[in-house]
Amino acid sequence: MTSSPTLPAQSTDTGLYLEVQQFYAHQMQLLDDRACDEWAATFTPEGVFAANGLPAPAKGRQTIAAAARAAGERLAAEGLVHRHWLGMLTVLPQPDGTVSARSYALVIQTRIGGGGTAELHRSTLCEDRLVRGEDGSLLVLERKVTRDDLA
Amino acid sequence: MTSSPTLPAQSTDTGLYLEVQQFYAHQMQLLDDRACDEWAATFTPEGVFAANGLPAPAKGRQTIAAAARAAGERLAAEGLVHRHWLGMLTVLPQPDGTVSARSYALVIQTRIGGGGTAELHRSTLCEDRLVRGEDGSLLVLERKVTRDDLA
Amino acid sequence: MTSSPTLPAQSTDTGLYLEVQQFYAHQMQLLDDRACDEWAATFTPEGVFAANGLPAPAKGRQTIAAAARAAGERLAAEGLVHRHWLGMLTVLPQPDGTVSARSYALVIQTRIGGGGTAELHRSTLCEDRLVRGEDGSLLVLERKVTRDDLA
Repeated sequence: MTSSPTLPAQSTDTGLYLEVQQFYAHQMQLLDDRACDEWAATFTPEGVFAANGLPAPAKGRQTIAAAARAAGERLAAEGLVHRHWLGMLTVLPQPDGTVSARSYALVIQTRIGGGGTAELHRSTLCEDRLVRGEDGSLLVLERKVTRDDLA
Repeated sequence: MTSSPTLPAQSTDTGLYLEVQQFYAHQMQLLDDRACDEWAATFTPEGVFAANGLPAPAKGRQTIAAAARAAGERLAAEGLVHRHWLGMLTVLPQPDGTVSARSYALVIQTRIGGGGTAELHRSTLCEDRLVRGEDGSLLVLERKVTRDDLA
Repeated sequence: MTSSPTLPAQSTDTGLYLEVQQFYAHQMQLLDDRACDEWAATFTPEGVFAANGLPAPAKGRQTIAAAARAAGERLAAEGLVHRHWLGMLTVLPQPDGTVSARSYALVIQTRIGGGGTAELHRSTLCEDRLVRGEDGSLLVLERKVTRDDLA
């Protein structure tokens, strides 16, 4: 219609983009529902969860599940509910067959019995390398979460 | 590439998933624009809106429209603007032809003339059963909204 | 299944809807990463950025880039990180070949070293007219951002 853009087109294959969206929605619901083993199973068996808010990366499904379980128990003890929101997702297939996914992630925190108002517990950047499992579904090989306040 | 996933694939038909996304975006814009009759028309004629924050479910378009109108008037009188955000959507077609949609819903509240900062008025879980109207478009047969603070 | 809906179907062409989603995700990442020239290049050369929070519209890529740079420097000086989230997107192709996109936009603000809690700096309505550049990718011809608190 007009103009000379200098940026490469940013559109990924429609099917893959939607598949990643659905994968994240499902994955976040598992985490927030404290389905810790199912959450951990969305990582590869040796998957890595690294975050600048954690002392060390969690490696492997057992460790990832245990960390989620501990976090969930802390929240329950404090009477808090967390909801993880991912958005502003970009997806780039890599030459080696993995998929790079970059998104923003929020943690919304609500106090049970606290009257309703929620707070933005965290604002982060989430960088994933995704691969396909044996049945073809997506799995996280490596996740890096960067808290904005620690950037 | 690697690993043995234990979860079933969570990818729904691409077209349906996007249709639900668009349906929700349109529906939330109607609500926040106080197009109350149009909002109510996104439910079936006998549609149900139930919420753990409400004394009783609203049943039928007239009741749903009246509730939206009353809420809108309250907000206007208090000088507040609400924006409803849905996200982390999963969609599962059911054997009976209905569609189960599960999402997170936020209510963002801003005070007119308040300097700009908004607040997270509510964080909720939204569980819908969707059906198709005579012209094929999606409608809410039943909605259940669960406030995180009352969970 | 049931009922007589009174609303026209709101589903846009699947490919276009996803393309706009991806365009926005990429565009917001550029802005928040302070890639100001790349951000400005997502507008047409004479593109317009108008907002009820700004004294005058920014016109043309140079002006749009300069405004982003100035805002980025202000944030850096104050030790703040911004993340722009767009959501609740509706997309309507127009008879003249342009595309109308209406969405909600949030600005999430986090203070570096501030302990982690973020705030909802702004809640806005974003109305875009999009066109295609010579290579077929989407560009913003005209953007109008309306802050909820100034509505």
